[in-house]
Amino acid sequence: MKKPLVGIVMGSDSDLPVMRGAADILDEFGIPWEVLISSAHRAPEKTSDYARRAAERGLAVIIAGAGGAAHLAGVIAGHTPLPVIGVPIASGALNGVDALYATVQMPPGIPVATVALNGAKNAGILAAQIVSAGQPEVRDKVIAYKEKMARQVEEKSTRLQE
Amino acid sequence: MKKPLVGIVMGSDSDLPVMRGAADILDEFGIPWEVLISSAHRAPEKTSDYARRAAERGLAVIIAGAGGAAHLAGVIAGHTPLPVIGVPIASGALNGVDALYATVQMPPGIPVATVALNGAKNAGILAAQIVSAGQPEVRDKVIAYKEKMARQVEEKSTRLQE
Amino acid sequence: MKKPLVGIVMGSDSDLPVMRGAADILDEFGIPWEVLISSAHRAPEKTSDYARRAAERGLAVIIAGAGGAAHLAGVIAGHTPLPVIGVPIASGALNGVDALYATVQMPPGIPVATVALNGAKNAGILAAQIVSAGQPEVRDKVIAYKEKMARQVEEKSTRLQE
Amino acid sequence: MKKPLVGIVMGSDSDLPVMRGAADILDEFGIPWEVLISSAHRAPEKTSDYARRAAERGLAVIIAGAGGAAHLAGVIAGHTPLPVIGVPIASGALNGVDALYATVQMPPGIPVATVALNGAKNAGILAAQIVSAGQPEVRDKVIAYKEKMARQVEEKSTRLQE
Amino acid sequence: MKKPLVGIVMGSDSDLPVMRGAADILDEFGIPWEVLISSAHRAPEKTSDYARRAAERGLAVIIAGAGGAAHLAGVIAGHTPLPVIGVPIASGALNGVDALYATVQMPPGIPVATVALNGAKNAGILAAQIVSAGQPEVRDKVIAYKEKMARQVEEKSTRLQE
Amino acid sequence: MKKPLVGIVMGSDSDLPVMRGAADILDEFGIPWEVLISSAHRAPEKTSDYARRAAERGLAVIIAGAGGAAHLAGVIAGHTPLPVIGVPIASGALNGVDALYATVQMPPGIPVATVALNGAKNAGILAAQIVSAGQPEVRDKVIAYKEKMARQVEEKSTRLQE
Amino acid sequence: MKKPLVGIVMGSDSDLPVMRGAADILDEFGIPWEVLISSAHRAPEKTSDYARRAAERGLAVIIAGAGGAAHLAGVIAGHTPLPVIGVPIASGALNGVDALYATVQMPPGIPVATVALNGAKNAGILAAQIVSAGQPEVRDKVIAYKEKMARQVEEKSTRLQE
Amino acid sequence: MKKPLVGIVMGSDSDLPVMRGAADILDEFGIPWEVLISSAHRAPEKTSDYARRAAERGLAVIIAGAGGAAHLAGVIAGHTPLPVIGVPIASGALNGVDALYATVQMPPGIPVATVALNGAKNAGILAAQIVSAGQPEVRDKVIAYKEKMARQVEEKSTRLQE
Repeated sequence: MKKPLVGIVMGSDSDLPVMRGAADILDEFGIPWEVLISSAHRAPEKTSDYARRAAERGLAVIIAGAGGAAHLAGVIAGHTPLPVIGVPIASGALNGVDALYATVQMPPGIPVATVALNGAKNAGILAAQIVSAGQPEVRDKVIAYKEKMARQVEEKSTRLQE
Repeated sequence: MKKPLVGIVMGSDSDLPVMRGAADILDEFGIPWEVLISSAHRAPEKTSDYARRAAERGLAVIIAGAGGAAHLAGVIAGHTPLPVIGVPIASGALNGVDALYATVQMPPGIPVATVALNGAKNAGILAAQIVSAGQPEVRDKVIAYKEKMARQVEEKSTRLQE
Repeated sequence: MKKPLVGIVMGSDSDLPVMRGAADILDEFGIPWEVLISSAHRAPEKTSDYARRAAERGLAVIIAGAGGAAHLAGVIAGHTPLPVIGVPIASGALNGVDALYATVQMPPGIPVATVALNGAKNAGILAAQIVSAGQPEVRDKVIAYKEKMARQVEEKSTRLQE
Repeated sequence: MKKPLVGIVMGSDSDLPVMRGAADILDEFGIPWEVLISSAHRAPEKTSDYARRAAERGLAVIIAGAGGAAHLAGVIAGHTPLPVIGVPIASGALNGVDALYATVQMPPGIPVATVALNGAKNAGILAAQIVSAGQPEVRDKVIAYKEKMARQVEEKSTRLQE
Repeated sequence: MKKPLVGIVMGSDSDLPVMRGAADILDEFGIPWEVLISSAHRAPEKTSDYARRAAERGLAVIIAGAGGAAHLAGVIAGHTPLPVIGVPIASGALNGVDALYATVQMPPGIPVATVALNGAKNAGILAAQIVSAGQPEVRDKVIAYKEKMARQVEEKSTRLQE
Repeated sequence: MKKPLVGIVMGSDSDLPVMRGAADILDEFGIPWEVLISSAHRAPEKTSDYARRAAERGLAVIIAGAGGAAHLAGVIAGHTPLPVIGVPIASGALNGVDALYATVQMPPGIPVATVALNGAKNAGILAAQIVSAGQPEVRDKVIAYKEKMARQVEEKSTRLQE
Repeated sequence: MKKPLVGIVMGSDSDLPVMRGAADILDEFGIPWEVLISSAHRAPEKTSDYARRAAERGLAVIIAGAGGAAHLAGVIAGHTPLPVIGVPIASGALNGVDALYATVQMPPGIPVATVALNGAKNAGILAAQIVSAGQPEVRDKVIAYKEKMARQVEEKSTRLQE
Repeated sequence: MKKPLVGIVMGSDSDLPVMRGAADILDEFGIPWEVLISSAHRAPEKTSDYARRAAERGLAVIIAGAGGAAHLAGVIAGHTPLPVIGVPIASGALNGVDALYATVQMPPGIPVATVALNGAKNAGILAAQIVSAGQPEVRDKVIAYKEKMARQVEEKSTRLQE
């Protein structure tokens, strides 16, 4: 088994159905990943330890998904020089507007690369794009993936017109 | 000088004009306080160290003010058993809706006692009310403060009608 | 039976399924509580009488939950020197944004310690943290509770990786 | 001097520049009014006393203006059988969305007749329309007022085309 | 059958389940009403004809309910000197925020007395309060209704504590 | 002078600085227009008369701009078979969100072609595009206009890089 | 079969149930249409090719529907001199507020004629109104359609009163 | 001069004061960049040409900033396999909520790494973090940058306490 390049962290196991999307697409791109449940609030030491050690352990990107006052991605970004991708998760009464704002509105100095609400699949693709900076063969897979999408749109359109 | 009972933490020195309101009202109630600039993202170790040691240092309450993706109060609350009061600060393009949601929408297990946007004065009063649980003479000051407010409303109303 | 330290007030019996969360966690912390249905609008005398007598009756904290134009916590806070915790309840067409704003945006002088939408459990924990100011053994229970949460996150994460 | 028919209540003297609009239009309709500063939170007794005695004192309508967690109109409505008109006032970081929701989203049983943000002038016209239910000569003034508005629009349009 | 005092207008028969709440409460107060489906957009002549003739036909109040870009109450208010109560109806993707803003944010000169989203019952109570300006016996019914509500809260609270 | 093809209606002369943008761009396309101040609420007859007669008078499009509970475009659309373009105008405490929702969220059957907040210039371009359906030479002007925009972007980019 | 005058484009086949509303009403008006699935992001070449060739192929209007960050209508409008109607589609966690803003808030120079969320039927009517600029018999159909709507409101109102 | 690794694209020269923040921080990290004004709507060919050729020209990341219906980042992402960072710019009546939603809510398949409103500086840091995947010396600079931030917070806090 290859050493993971992407760490997928989520605040609660209830986020798993959404966050699985990131793992699935990374599998499709052949990029090894690992998964962790942690919490910026309920398990703050675990979270900061993981973030602090991520770079030396060989990770290239961390994807963090959380709902509500979604501090997970931001807290991780505070502890690592790696790029951190935030997935705001739609849950609770505000249905994710809180998670989106709490993920994206980071102060100067500590960016979180935020994707759409529940956008774990796109988080995986973005991670692949970042990894591809150092691995040309991943770039080729991204290009192939985009061409496949364009073909699929074409096919759906053709089918509709029949 | 008396040992501080309330810690006032803010994410940036630009939050000082708002957060000063908490210190002023604590002075009025005769409750000793201390102040700290820290940041959940730019100075994560400093923030968690402070929060972890707050109870043993004799603090009774922590007030934390931040804007944008305001993680400060929540991160502190993750590291201390003390009650934490959050002051969402209105700044930037969303003018504080982001800070309000990021402060108040905490997950089960880790409450942040959130006051109004820029409500540092109320944070100070709430801290006094919490301190008063163990100090009856503070309770009396809170009662006197409320009576003074009622009289002031009365006076303003009388003046208006003249 | 011990004298209640926390009063749990709600605007309608339809709020009971949410507000029960506060009572359950207070039981877990061994803090005696009482419950009341009242309404700032439909039973204004009952509400203000209860709030005015709360301190002398020995309560230390009041938790108030309401939806829509949620005035209950604020009105109670106007009548008592005790700390008041507000639980905005998600209901109706605006799904709680109205209740959140009506609970948290209190004017200077009268704070309401607001927790998340439907955050009754956190209201209970916050009440315990406030009570712990005068009762060190409650502080120990809060610390134990936080350690239990961290362990549970750890276990869930381990289970996920198996 | 005639006995007032309309009570204009505001939460703070800072609301006066807005609320004056109600008094001015009532003067234009020849309807006597009185003004009061009170606060649902800082002067709760004064507020409920005023509301409870309003009907017997001969008032026909109460207009209440407040900003933030604007409970004033709702609290007054809880204490009187009179129709209560609420004027949400735009102030603070949320610029009145909080006041609008806190004024209009009243629970079943206790309506507040809400007008636009800062809509004190319309509150005065609505009060006149309500008073006109028992006073036909006020109805005639409302009709005349509407005709004057239509003429003014006509004149502005004509001037523009010149 | 008595001549109707309140006209209940709605934009579509899909609004009937909500708007029925106004008719029911008016029945409880013994105030005769009539009902009409019309539309500011699909049946503009019918709407303006109804509004223009309402006062001379003896109506005292018009209640208008609509969803989406809810122009109905405002358009009626433009054509009558009577007080107009607007009921914003929650429907469609924005779930009534559109209807609330389109109903309440009327320009100076033409108020609409807006109640809560789907607040048809409160619209009925407000209509009764307005009618009571000229009919003291309706005032007594409103007082009795409020007392009944307070008793019901009391009973629910007692039952909860058993 | 040529007979106007586009009618520009606004709710108040305070809307003129914004709405002038529509007239200016129509001049640039050589499309004759006329202007009117009217109001769905303050001058309802004038508004509906204008809308009802617009088609027979030879107009091809109506542009209507209004702020707040912006009913103007919708009310006009109810009275004419012509395409109606709505310009929501940002004003007041909600800064145009109310006007946007009140303009765009029209019920099935009566569309309003809504442009951006304060988007009067785009309303003029859209009117030109609609007029071009019957006038090929206007189509050519639209194409030329788009080419000019692309060139201007090019020039600005070049200048930046120097 | 007649050459299509209206192109209906949608970002995904999941938009079909909504967008069908446009096709149905165009059939009712006897206006020939064509349909296409394309995507501003997944099939950008297909989208721009379609838009660039639309005018020369004889289309008079393009209707584009998309959800989320709904760029489809705006991107098409960038590539064609034809009027483009945008249908924001309610989907995902933000339920269409994102699609509405991304469709309507176009920059100066490139309008998109935006209809209500999910307002495909109104998009079809608006397309017919635009086509009617060059085809008087379509204008007559629009007039007849509006008269039918008014009759239907009348009938529903009569039925309600029986 | 070194070949640029980061392309900074903005929709209008009015975005320059904000977007300059990205260039400044890239200079600080010693990462060569280039700048371009283009527009998804006014210069669609220029935009797609630039995006299509970016990878082969040796760029590693594209940063795109736009306001309103901010399609620029999304459209570029549709045309390149490179990671695209979106900077929503606060402008106009909605003050950037439109730009945020239009940038972040991308459909599955085409991510845009979104930073805070006006967060150009963070876009630059994120670009550096991405570039550092292939360049270890940039990673060291990111680490040094984070340490400097922590020291600055420390210094400000110390100064405050003096």
